[in-house]
Order: sequence, then structure tokens, then C-alpha cells
Amino acid sequence: MDAVDIATMLEELGRAARGAAEVLAETPAEGRRAAILAAADAIWDRRAAIARANALDMEAARARGLPTAMLDRLALDERRLGAIVAAVRAVADQPDPVGQVIADWTVPSGLRIRRVRTPIGVIGVIYESRPNVTADAAALCLKSGNAVILRGGSESFHSSGAIHEAFLEGLRAAGLPEAAVSRVPVRDRAAVSQMLRMSGLIDVIVPRGGRSLVELVQAEARVPVFAHLEGICHVYVDGAADPATASAIVLNAKTRRPGICGAAECLLIDRAFLERHGPGPVEALLAAGVEVRAEPPLDIPGTVPARPEDFGREFLDMIIAARVVEGVDGAIDHIRRHGSQHTESIVTEDRAAAARFFARLDSAILMHNASTQFADGGEFGMGAEIGIATGRLHARGPVGAEQLTSFRYLVEGQGTLRP
Amino acid sequence: MDAVDIATMLEELGRAARGAAEVLAETPAEGRRAAILAAADAIWDRRAAIARANALDMEAARARGLPTAMLDRLALDERRLGAIVAAVRAVADQPDPVGQVIADWTVPSGLRIRRVRTPIGVIGVIYESRPNVTADAAALCLKSGNAVILRGGSESFHSSGAIHEAFLEGLRAAGLPEAAVSRVPVRDRAAVSQMLRMSGLIDVIVPRGGRSLVELVQAEARVPVFAHLEGICHVYVDGAADPATASAIVLNAKTRRPGICGAAECLLIDRAFLERHGPGPVEALLAAGVEVRAEPPLDIPGTVPARPEDFGREFLDMIIAARVVEGVDGAIDHIRRHGSQHTESIVTEDRAAAARFFARLDSAILMHNASTQFADGGEFGMGAEIGIATGRLHARGPVGAEQLTSFRYLVEGQGTLRP
Repeated sequence: MDAVDIATMLEELGRAARGAAEVLAETPAEGRRAAILAAADAIWDRRAAIARANALDMEAARARGLPTAMLDRLALDERRLGAIVAAVRAVADQPDPVGQVIADWTVPSGLRIRRVRTPIGVIGVIYESRPNVTADAAALCLKSGNAVILRGGSESFHSSGAIHEAFLEGLRAAGLPEAAVSRVPVRDRAAVSQMLRMSGLIDVIVPRGGRSLVELVQAEARVPVFAHLEGICHVYVDGAADPATASAIVLNAKTRRPGICGAAECLLIDRAFLERHGPGPVEALLAAGVEVRAEPPLDIPGTVPARPEDFGREFLDMIIAARVVEGVDGAIDHIRRHGSQHTESIVTEDRAAAARFFARLDSAILMHNASTQFADGGEFGMGAEIGIATGRLHARGPVGAEQLTSFRYLVEGQGTLRP
Repeated sequence: MDAVDIATMLEELGRAARGAAEVLAETPAEGRRAAILAAADAIWDRRAAIARANALDMEAARARGLPTAMLDRLALDERRLGAIVAAVRAVADQPDPVGQVIADWTVPSGLRIRRVRTPIGVIGVIYESRPNVTADAAALCLKSGNAVILRGGSESFHSSGAIHEAFLEGLRAAGLPEAAVSRVPVRDRAAVSQMLRMSGLIDVIVPRGGRSLVELVQAEARVPVFAHLEGICHVYVDGAADPATASAIVLNAKTRRPGICGAAECLLIDRAFLERHGPGPVEALLAAGVEVRAEPPLDIPGTVPARPEDFGREFLDMIIAARVVEGVDGAIDHIRRHGSQHTESIVTEDRAAAARFFARLDSAILMHNASTQFADGGEFGMGAEIGIATGRLHARGPVGAEQLTSFRYLVEGQGTLRP
């Protein structure tokens, strides 16, 4: 397909999605919920077909020699498909955001003003190899009354297509237009550039993938973007931390899944903690097989020397940078300089230190005595997430159905005139 | 000043504003409120100096032969200055948005999650001749914990400068950095282009002015923009409207101030109303001296024939387009085709018709039995507004202090690990 054909095709896709968005905006909650639940059933009913589609993708990926981590992200077994179905159902069972009254007040002129949630319109989702994004994004957009245009990576082309088919079945079952969940049916990269320019037809773009994809989208998009470039998450072990809690949180934050954006990339230890309790968190990481790139005095046997560029770096691997800081203010200074405003955690029994950490840092998510791996829409109770945003406008942190809405004002008078 | 110097100067201004924003973000509500109240006092104390500055601007404007409407917007007498001071005080007395807990919930893992309001950072305001924007924008940004960079039109250069001085005095009195309310000290247009490109130093741009300014900003900005291009506001008189109420609302919506964005530009009359009550609202407009561009059967004596391009047009003058429609659905169709998603009002005693109008239209503001002239932050109880937005992301409708905030998540665990 040449560029002109792709532009025409996407324009048609966009117009159909816009029309579907108008229908969705007037569809009651129950109708959208029914479509999502029917799609969940259809995914499960079609699990054999989805497995066959996934096998095609896996075969092609192996033939292309893709790295193991990417193969792992791509693979869909029955357990993973069950988790996808559960996430879709969890989204369906969330409170419906559309029509919610966010605020309701009466002004001295006698006008009653209500601020009411409304869908945004059409969401474009550009993602790499994870097939579950197809299901999460489709379910969240339907829940929030938005149409979605999905553009998955070419690696997951068949798997995403098979999951998309299940959503079309769900939409048909609920009597909703199929264009509500649209999918770009070509693998061509030109389709991405085209989507980024469709400012009249797509209201928001959500890129899900590595730094290079997000950078491309942020640089080229003429449409607003909800995204994070990097998750350079910090865990700060305060002088007043419980040492067992500290080691457990540091270990979980780094090793549970080292490749997700909420994984810790830097360990900051208060000098007071080190003097009182020793380098327990570093020892725990080493014992778990993590490469600890440490500055003195954390350079205990087994660590490797940290270079300056290891701070403020997203390893997405079993590697962590480690440094001693002077109390909570030292941690705050370090994070302000090197962080990416994604997620940071303080481990301490001192509520004043935690309050200072919360007050003086401005990441999307700040945690106290909890693992940074909880930076996730599902764990936040949103059922799923369409992505995590570190921008400051509209959406921030895990983006669920509620943040995929806009609002409008409904104003009631009694023949009220402005003096 | 050449372009390089302007770029350097704005970069320095931007850095200083960013630094001030960090201070403001940690300044308690009382400190920011004190600065705003001290600025209000300073405006009043300096009213003689402000009048002298305004006289300079007026003189230059008359010499340049600016139209009367623009001279009127520019003029500051003691009454208008009193209104500016009152608006600044009203903003100071609003509830402080910063630190407000928007949501607070606990998830099954045991984490307590709070979503808390936080300032956005640095707001850039680019405006034309109205000197009151200087005060409204500065007050609202301080209230929301943001630093602001003001770039007023060259017509109001001295007036804005004198009001800006009062804010600097307020900041000094409260011990806050002067860079919290920064002003571009040159008249050069290049400063606007430069501001639109300062994506690292300015978080949001708010343009306040005519269509050409807003179009320029929207086309060139590499920074998010809160704006509306046009206010093509409709009043729909339903078959079930009370005729006296209908005429009063139509008249107020058009004539109270025909040049504001919330002024009605198009009157839609239900055929059933016309048959039952006649063209009363049109007669009322004619009697008030409004040019009514009417289609048959509204082409009563005194009207002029409407051309197709009169629908969907922002007159900002004593001119209105008028058309008969078939019921509320006819009005909805017309508004969807010709509106600018700013503000529309339905006049009816039929609650079902009003509900349908509210449900099926998606303007920023929908009204029932009220004048569209209420589309204003002050009238919405926000003290003032920095602008009105018709975009769908983050801010919509009148933008007050609350919508100049972002949020972050504060998460508390008890050594909580993710399984």
C-alpha cells in the first residue's frame, strides 16, 4: 500500500470512528458494559483461534531472531488469556464514568451549574508487541464512551487481530457500531505517521512501547499525547526505615518484573540507615542476582562501580544504581535531578519524613512503604490501564476509564438574565 | 531588540518563572492568598499611577486610529479599576485548590491511594488590549500555585505594566519571588513566537484575544493551549417556551454585551413556537436595534435576508442570524453543523426537551432558561477566568484556578509488596 492509499484508508477509518463515537456518547452505560462483557466471553470462546494466531506471530518473531524478552511479551498461553479476560471483565464492572456529576453548585444569580463527565471522542492507541494492550485499550475506551483506533506492532499482528475480532463480536452482540473499536489493518509504519497528523479525527494518542516509539510520537504528533518517556523510579531507604521492610520493598521493586516501567532503577540509602543497619538492601539485591552499580560507601563486594550516567538511567533489567544520600532532603535533591516524574517510594517509619517526601516531590505517583511495582492501573483499582502518563495535563499516572473522559457544564436557570 | 536577544531574554524569564513555580508549589495557601490580597490593595493604592499609564496607552491608541470598540476595551476608569480589584479579591477568597484531595480510596492490596491537586507549573498568557487580563491571570495563577508569564498587547503596554507593578508589590509583601508574576518587557511580536516554542519552560499557553491571535497560537504552539477560537453561541426557543421569558433571554443573550464570546450569534425558533406565539423574540431584537438576518418565515419587516454564511458566524456586534427549526432535534442538528461548541441555551418549560438538548449536544456549556452571557468564570463562581476553553482535554468552559491545577497520586502502604 502506498502512502496515499494509507492516508485515504486512515481518513476513512477516522471518519467511521468519529461516527461511532457519536453513537457511543449516547449509548447508556448498560449497552457499553454489555459489549465489553460479550467481548470478554468472545475472547475466551475463541481462545483456540487466538492461540493459532499467536503461534503465527511467535513463529515469525523467532525467524526474525527477536530477543527472548520480546518473545516473552508476545506469547499468549491460556493463563495469560485468562488474565486478559479477567481484566476486560474488571473494566466492565467499574463504575461508569459517562454522565457522572463531578460538581454541582448554585451561584448567587440563581443558576444551578453541574459539571458532568462526557467522553473525549476518538482515542488512537499505538503500541508495540504486547497483545493484551488490544483488549485493555478497547475495553477502557468503550467503558469511557470513546471510539478507539488501534495500531498494534507488526510483531503481534495476528494475535491483536484475533483479539480485535472478539471485540467486534461483542459490539455486534450489543448492537453497537463495529467502528467503535477500529484497527489499522496494515503493518506499514506510514500508518503511524498518518495517525499522528489526524488532529480533526483523533482527539488523543496513547503510545505504548519503548522509548524510541514514545519519542517519535511526542516529536511528530499534532494531536495531544498521553505518555511517559521513561520510568526512572527511585526507592529511598530513610534512616528511620525498618530494615526488613526496606530490603523486601527494594527487592520487590527491582526484581518482581525488572522490565516494566514501575520497576525501581535507583536505590538511595540514607547515610543514617547505613550507619545503623548496614547495607542490607544492597545485599538482598546481590543475593537475588541483581547487578548493583554502587558508589562508595555502598561498594561492598559483589557490586560494580557506578558511573555518573548510571543515575537517571532506565535499565529495564536486573541492574540497579545505588547511592548514599543525606536524609530525605538528599533523596529529594537526587530525584529532582535524575528522576522522570513517574514513581518514587520512601521506606520509613517516620511519618514526618514521608510527609516531606510527598510534599516536595512532584512525580505522578509517590509511595510510602510500598513497592514501586504497584504503579499500575489494575493495582490502582481501575481494572486496567491504557497507559501511564507523566505529563501534567488532563491525565497523569495510570490512565483508566475516568481519565479518558472530558466534561461539560449543564446550567439551569429560571429565565435568568445577566445584569 | 533582535530575535536572538529576545530568545535569550525569554529563556531567562522562563527559567526564573520555573524557579518561582517551585517556590509557589511549596508555599501554603495563606501565603499565596496574602500576596493576591496585597496586590489588590496595591492596585487600588496606585490607581492614580495606573490612570496615568492608561492615559498614555489611550493617547497612542487614538493617534493610531484604533476603532472605538478597541478604545473602549482599553480604557480604565476608577469604576473599572474597582471591578478589577473586586475580581482579584474574589479570586483570593476562593477555596484553595492546591493540596485538595480529589479522591481517596483503598485497594485490596491494602494500599491507600489519594489523588491530590498540584499546580501545573508555569502558565503563559498572551493577550490583546484588555488590561484586566493582567490582573485576572496573575491572581488565578497565584491562587493555583502557578507562576505566570504575561505578554499583553502593545496597545495596553503601559496599563498592564502599572497593574503588573502592583502584583510585584503584593509578592514582595508576602515574601514570594517576583518571578512568580513575570511580564515580557518588550512589545516585539517575536516574543510571542518564542513563547510558543518554550515547551520545557512553559507548561500551558492561554491566548486571550481575537480569532487571528488564537489561530496563530494554535497553529504555532509546541506547548499545550487552553483556548476557544470562536463563540458561535445559539439560543433555541422551543415550542414549549414561555414567550416573555424567550424574548427576555434572547435580548439579553445578544445585546447585553454583543462583543463578548458568550454573546448569542444565532436565534433558532421552533416552528411550533412561531405558530403559537408569533415572532416575538425577533421583534424584541429589532426594537433594540439589532440587525436580524432572518430566513423565511422569520423575514418580518425590519429584518434583512439571511445568507447561508450568516449561520455559523461570529458577529460580535449588534447582528444576529435567525432561522426556524423543527423542534429540539432540528435545533440540535443545526447547532451540530454550525456551532463552535462554546455555549448554547434552550428556552422551554418542557423538561424533557431540555434534557434532550443537554444529552445530545456537546458544547462546553449548555444552558436551560438562561442567557448565554453567563458563560463567564466570574458568573460561574470562580472569581474570574483566565479564559474559556472549547478543547476537550484538561480544561473546558471558563478556566478558573481549579482547572489550572494538575494532580499526583500519594500512595501509602505497610511494607506492601506486589505479588
